[in-house]
Formats: sequence, structure tokens, C-alpha cells
Amino acid sequence: MSLDRLSMNQATLRYAPLPVVIDSVRTIGASAIGVWRETVDELGATEVARQLADAGMRASSLCRGGFFTSGDDDTWAAALDDNRRALDDAAAIGAPTLVLVAGGLPVGSRDLVGARERVRDAIGALAPHASATGVSLAIEALHPMYAADRAVVSTLGQALDLAEQFAAKEVGVVVDTFHLWWDPELAAQVARAGAGNRILSYQVCDWLTPIAADSLLSRGYPGDGHIDFAAFTSLVRDAGYAGDVEVEIFNQAIWDDEPGRVSTIVADRYLQLIEPSL
Amino acid sequence: MSLDRLSMNQATLRYAPLPVVIDSVRTIGASAIGVWRETVDELGATEVARQLADAGMRASSLCRGGFFTSGDDDTWAAALDDNRRALDDAAAIGAPTLVLVAGGLPVGSRDLVGARERVRDAIGALAPHASATGVSLAIEALHPMYAADRAVVSTLGQALDLAEQFAAKEVGVVVDTFHLWWDPELAAQVARAGAGNRILSYQVCDWLTPIAADSLLSRGYPGDGHIDFAAFTSLVRDAGYAGDVEVEIFNQAIWDDEPGRVSTIVADRYLQLIEPSL
Repeated sequence: MSLDRLSMNQATLRYAPLPVVIDSVRTIGASAIGVWRETVDELGATEVARQLADAGMRASSLCRGGFFTSGDDDTWAAALDDNRRALDDAAAIGAPTLVLVAGGLPVGSRDLVGARERVRDAIGALAPHASATGVSLAIEALHPMYAADRAVVSTLGQALDLAEQFAAKEVGVVVDTFHLWWDPELAAQVARAGAGNRILSYQVCDWLTPIAADSLLSRGYPGDGHIDFAAFTSLVRDAGYAGDVEVEIFNQAIWDDEPGRVSTIVADRYLQLIEPSL
Repeated sequence: MSLDRLSMNQATLRYAPLPVVIDSVRTIGASAIGVWRETVDELGATEVARQLADAGMRASSLCRGGFFTSGDDDTWAAALDDNRRALDDAAAIGAPTLVLVAGGLPVGSRDLVGARERVRDAIGALAPHASATGVSLAIEALHPMYAADRAVVSTLGQALDLAEQFAAKEVGVVVDTFHLWWDPELAAQVARAGAGNRILSYQVCDWLTPIAADSLLSRGYPGDGHIDFAAFTSLVRDAGYAGDVEVEIFNQAIWDDEPGRVSTIVADRYLQLIEPSL
């Protein structure tokens, strides 16, 4: 039993400043953190890197780039510039991966096919900078319930169709239990992702019902919902993934709880439900 | 411009008694109704058939059977019996199709694969009775956000994988805009469904954001949300579908509105956004 591969995504401890996150993660005996851009923007990449290094921590990913579905050329170009800065920041804090959330339909648009084409074009435009910085772009398929307003990349198969147009060291995918657990193609697509060395991150949290009134916050601790983490994790293991397991939970009650208590529960659930299948 | 293919699903006028539904549909100049089982259970199939016939109306479908994912043998067998009665009722009211909602995970279960296997077994057990009654079973893929608690059939591709194990006159699929609009495989799977003569019903309503606090009720009139009905309907037309278009909207504000007013809006939106692409 080991916490070597457990990473605490900052979003799970949303209101905690970075030193509190670091302290909570150290207390449970883990050593990796999924860093959010808000923290880097606030403190600067150098300071974030220093705090992580001083604590013997590493960044498992930087969350998040993307949001490049705009049909307006200037807005789209500005999004690309922002993503290049995110790649620079990821490199500066030692994060191997930048997680990409595609973005939803532009306001007033119903052109889902067009929005998806712009995602492909954006990743193509960013791939050289990913290569130059040594940071991989990780396309995250979000649950289809977010297709209109958050991410037009909705399945792992679709994310892989995009990623496979580029070199594996530049572009891969996130495998996230909350977003993907329902997919009848899950086993086949996880295997495909592994065979192509495309899995850059494995993120875990549970699917709760009823769906929260704010549908973004319907996530729970592994074990509190409907997902079979042993089965899902076995697929990821059998696909050859040997990287970090990020626990990323958007949940108002968890955000309102004490970071030390949340971290203890995260560690317990990880050891109970996920680590045995890794 | 014609309302010949417009069917008012009773769920859109949820609180209206059948005579009011019939009157509203006649007033807008349409002649088909998607009937719900609650009405048949209350009035009896003979009376429903008489009211429809007296008004020159026809039933486009009976909603709904299914809910056969239970892992308990007795519960599963009872669900099959209930579905056989639903097939009898559909035949008695002249509905060519029984819409099937698979059912979610059994309470406390996380075995999604197992639940999906029981759906296949149930359809296999029902197919002979479908054939005997002359009523087709229409598998409806529900949006993946309902996979845990309502329907473990989540994509059109998965519904077709199930349906194609049986004869086309016994088992087909529902194509529903709200449930399927996000799917990157949509065009290919609608074409596949049409090529195999598997499309038994085309149901329309829009995807609203933010998702309603009760996620079942996040549907709207065509045109009020994010779906491109011209593009979607063109796929269904190009797949060779020539049947009814059922407007089925679960929305509290629409339910609270006056049935005549709702029906007028339904007809207007149908003629504006859907009929030109049929």
C-alpha cells in the first residue's frame, strides 16, 4: 500500500492557499499536486516551483488550458497565446502535462461540428510549443452534459481521434472516471489510449446522484457514488499506465470542509478503492 | 408546410387529460399523439383507442416500457411481464412502437456491464411477443447523464448494437435530439440506423443550459437551446426516415402553461425549425 502515485488536485481543496495544500498533502504522506493556473497567476511560476521544491513535492499536471472554440479570430488567437503561456508555466513548475478543456459552443452558436474543428486547429497550432517546452498537451473529454457550455470534446474516442493526429510526446489524453464511466466504449478506448502511449493523466472522483443543482459540482469522493473504481482502474492499469492518479473533486460540501480532513478521506479512499487495482 | 408528421407526445402536456390533449392537437391541425402508459392504465386501452378514433387521431407510439436492469430474478421477470402488457396495450391503441427506457443501475450496484447485459437479455425475451403483437420495440438511448439512475443505454451506437441482434421488424431505436445531439458519432450512427431500417421514432426537444436543478426537466422547445435542428433533422431525413416527429418536452414551466398555448408554440417551432429539413 503506497501513496506514491496519489496526487491531490488543487481543485479538491479549492479554497486552501498553496501552503495549506502542500501541508495537507505532506501530512497524509503523498508528494504530488495537480496545480491550477489561478495559483500560478497569483504567485508566479517561480514561487510555486520554490514552494513545491522546498516541500519535496512535485506537480503532476497544470490545470488547465483550452477554451479555444471561439469563431472570432482575435478571441481564438488570444486563447492560443494564453495556452502558450500555460505551457511555459507548466514547464517552469515542472509539470509534465497541461490539461486542456476544449470549451463549449460560442455564445449563440449551434455549430458543434465547427467548434470541434477549431479545437483540432488549436491543438495543431499549439503542438510545436508543447514540443519546445517539453510539456505534453492532455485533451480531457468532459462528460457530454457539458458539451454545450464547457467542452465540445465529449468522449475518450473523440479525444484520441484528435490526439492521434499529433506525436504522442506532444498530445495525449486525460482519463477521468467522472467524465467517462458511462461510456459503452470505455474498455476499448482505454486500451487504445494505452497502446498508443496517450494516457497522460488518470483523474478520479465519483458520480453522485441526483445530479447537483449546479451540475459542475456533482462529484464526490470515490466510493460515494456509482462508479466501480476497481473495474475502471484495472482498465487503466492493463493499458500500461504507470503515472499519477489525481483526485479532483468539485463539490461544495468538500470545499467547505477542513483541508486536513478532506485529505485524510482522499487518502483512505485511494488506498481502499484504487491503489489495490493499480 | 404540413403538420402531417408532427406528433404531440403526451409528456409535453403532462397535466392535461387525454380529451384536452386531443383537442389541443386537433386545434393546431395535427393528428398524432405519443401516448403514455399512465393514460392507458387509467382509462383502459379500449377507451383510449375509442377517443383517438373518434377524433381522427392516431397513436405514434406508446411510452414506455423497459426498466429491466434488476439483478433480482423475480423483479426482472415482473418487469418482463409488465412489458408484455405494454406491448398488448400498444397493439390495442394502434401504436406501432413501444418505447423502451432501459433502467439504471440497480440500487447499490456499480455493475454497469452486468446491467447492460440484462437489458439485452430482456429484449431477447420480449422479441417474440413484439413479433406476435406486431408492435416494434424501440430502444431509446438516454443522455449519459442518466446512466446511473435511469438508462444504462447511453448512445445510439450502443442501442443499435443491441437492436441489430434481432430482426428489424421486432427491435429498432428511438432517435432523440436531446439525448444524442452531443455525440461525435451522431452522423455515422444515424446513417447506420437508417441503412438497417432501425429508426422507429424521431423525438425532438432542445437542450437548455444551465441544466435544470432537476436534470430530467432541462428540456425546451426547439429553438430555445443549443441544438441545430436543421442539421440533426437532415441526418434523419438522409437516413431515409419517413415517420412521425414526436415533440416530447419535460419542462416544468411548459407543464404549468396552458395546453392550447403550448401546442401552438410546438406547431410554430416544428414548422420553422424541423419541417423544412424533413
